[in-house]
Amino acid sequence: MEHNKPLILITNDDGYQAKGLRKLISLMRPLGELLVISTDRVMSAKGHSITTTPTLTATLIDHAPDYKEYVCNGTPVDCVKVAYQWISDRMPDLVVSGINHGSNASTNVIYSGTMAAAIEACMDGINAIGFSLDCYDLDADFDHLDPYITVITKDVLEHGLPDGVCLNVNFPKRSEEPFRGLKVCRQAKAKWIEVYSECLNEKGGTCLKLGGKFVYEDHGDDTDYYALQNNYISLVPTHFDLTATQYLPEMRRFEHIIEEK
Amino acid sequence: MEHNKPLILITNDDGYQAKGLRKLISLMRPLGELLVISTDRVMSAKGHSITTTPTLTATLIDHAPDYKEYVCNGTPVDCVKVAYQWISDRMPDLVVSGINHGSNASTNVIYSGTMAAAIEACMDGINAIGFSLDCYDLDADFDHLDPYITVITKDVLEHGLPDGVCLNVNFPKRSEEPFRGLKVCRQAKAKWIEVYSECLNEKGGTCLKLGGKFVYEDHGDDTDYYALQNNYISLVPTHFDLTATQYLPEMRRFEHIIEEK
Repeated sequence: MEHNKPLILITNDDGYQAKGLRKLISLMRPLGELLVISTDRVMSAKGHSITTTPTLTATLIDHAPDYKEYVCNGTPVDCVKVAYQWISDRMPDLVVSGINHGSNASTNVIYSGTMAAAIEACMDGINAIGFSLDCYDLDADFDHLDPYITVITKDVLEHGLPDGVCLNVNFPKRSEEPFRGLKVCRQAKAKWIEVYSECLNEKGGTCLKLGGKFVYEDHGDDTDYYALQNNYISLVPTHFDLTATQYLPEMRRFEHIIEEK
Repeated sequence: MEHNKPLILITNDDGYQAKGLRKLISLMRPLGELLVISTDRVMSAKGHSITTTPTLTATLIDHAPDYKEYVCNGTPVDCVKVAYQWISDRMPDLVVSGINHGSNASTNVIYSGTMAAAIEACMDGINAIGFSLDCYDLDADFDHLDPYITVITKDVLEHGLPDGVCLNVNFPKRSEEPFRGLKVCRQAKAKWIEVYSECLNEKGGTCLKLGGKFVYEDHGDDTDYYALQNNYISLVPTHFDLTATQYLPEMRRFEHIIEEK
């Protein structure tokens, strides 16, 4: 069967009702045939978690010409897997994930369900982009992103991405100034310092509530965090090879201690 | 307060009763003061998922001189965070995770709760090692690993690891031949191709059951997968910077398309 339009798979981690997902769907509508499969609830910070128990469901909730929308009770990575390993008989030409309510710049990428979905597609050789806005507000304003998301997506549809590379694109939240441009960046070094507090759960038992602060430890002007702070869109080419390549020679000491054992 | 012994934090993703965890505890016992905090159930393939709802608990289930053991109802990464951001007033000198029942070589590292726990500690500047055995059997034989785990751990306690680097150590399962040695490796390229099948859930509804096969796409002899297949211990220096650094120049095309917009 011939397909004139590219198949674009859309997912997110904020649930199917999220404003960021709805915006992304509206922006992708003119660009291809859409398969939307999002989570039935908020699945932020689920990282690359997948569902291994036999409990997954995917339910068609809306359809129109060139448009199908499903809701899945699993994680964002489950959504991606189920989309083209179960629902669709055609592999997507592109996976777009988001628009996330909150930044996935810096080490937030490690925890992000939105970016995990993009990375999963990338592992399967599919072009993939995660879009995020540096604003956690459920009612965040996404309208200032429209032309940028469209132009980035069109470029990827036309030219593709290198094998094994997806894009982590983060936008500053709306301010009085327009964006200063887009910066291609490296992932900033930073970490969360958690602050747990005791609270009562639904049954009246004591449990821990997660809080925390983001500690930025990187003073480079070539990072995604720096770009966002300075009103640039950040774009990090992102891969799934966790090898710390530059330390391979130094680590060979472990080959010798095993020999000598 | 002076501490003569290093504090070693032990966690895993196979649950507190797992044979691999019990083996790791027994091997660490002579090396330091132990804080064990493991998951109350199997949490394999939970990636870097964290619990953001106020539901976390950590329960002391055993203690002895220089030994405390907790069980946590969260994910492996929750265990690590709770251990030193809530339970302990002292930061660990080392985090060891495992011994995982099943390989975390190649792209399995992306899904692994065991390795996510080690990576989380690494993000916090703590030396960390994930140990895994290439055998999923609940009753797997771990005894042939004893001297290797001890010598690697002692080396890390003595010399430390580079900042931002943890170790992903995988062992071949027991065979008639002894290990041929240890290879310092890069993460192999490979992927899972899922095969979902319909089944009935507890309520009699239809759901999907995850199956799949691991497709190895890498022909290098410098990978962790190759090492395991050839009866070597594999050791991959692992970091949490997902930047595809070599593609930064090529990606600058996106800076230009935004300027031209």
